[in-house]
Amino acid sequence: MRLTKHSDYALRVLIYAATHRDRLVTIDETVAALGGVSRGHLMKVIGTLGRAGLLSGRRGRTGGIRLARDPRAIRLSAVLRATEPDFALFECLGGDQSCVILPACRLPRIAQRARAAFLAEFEHHTLADIMVSSAVFDQPAAAQATASGRAP
Amino acid sequence: MRLTKHSDYALRVLIYAATHRDRLVTIDETVAALGGVSRGHLMKVIGTLGRAGLLSGRRGRTGGIRLARDPRAIRLSAVLRATEPDFALFECLGGDQSCVILPACRLPRIAQRARAAFLAEFEHHTLADIMVSSAVFDQPAAAQATASGRAP
Repeated sequence: MRLTKHSDYALRVLIYAATHRDRLVTIDETVAALGGVSRGHLMKVIGTLGRAGLLSGRRGRTGGIRLARDPRAIRLSAVLRATEPDFALFECLGGDQSCVILPACRLPRIAQRARAAFLAEFEHHTLADIMVSSAVFDQPAAAQATASGRAP
Repeated sequence: MRLTKHSDYALRVLIYAATHRDRLVTIDETVAALGGVSRGHLMKVIGTLGRAGLLSGRRGRTGGIRLARDPRAIRLSAVLRATEPDFALFECLGGDQSCVILPACRLPRIAQRARAAFLAEFEHHTLADIMVSSAVFDQPAAAQATASGRAP
């Protein structure tokens, strides 16, 4: 069970934007600061977050992105709902009703409760709860990778 | 967020075996009864469940598989632990420590609590809780697919 990289990267972009709320941040700067996330993937993530009303931006030479709301008003569950394609743990929860056991099956109810318990944890926390000091982004990427022990 | 098809099919096989505990069930019979699950995938699932001590079997012409334990002793969380490759929601929970935010990040703790809440639901239930009547498998597969409204 994994969340998508899209969700993973979306949270990193939001943390970066939340840490620099006083100004627009550029895409290039965000790519450099986050390290290891491709520009192309980041653009898609920013598009998703913009459509979800979590980021706003200005195009052009002096453009950039910024949080569209106060970090305390951005629930982590809202981020995951915007970035995950679905939360259909099993085929039957995703609209495929072909499983022969389904008419009598008690698993969907259990899976729905598990999903609700999972999302409740992210519902209880906002972006403000996971913000970091801007100093986290101040060291060069290479030093950060070494310090945090990049996996081989 | 999805579980793998491996987990989905594993639960179906276990439900089928639990419903016919009085005898060995054959692979061919299980493929036919479940409908829509390929023989190849089912063989892999049965291998995983055998290694996890959830199914036992006898090879040969009179062979087949059966539950290795009482259904009340098979927690659904044990099934998922056997069939999911991992529960590493984010990169950092899967051993990749390269994210630059990680040293200061509070997201992993939240994700770990969400994962624990998710698994707790499956921990509270056993295979006995999701068993079905053997009549569920008695109708021809085509009729079942129609009755349950197979997705186009």
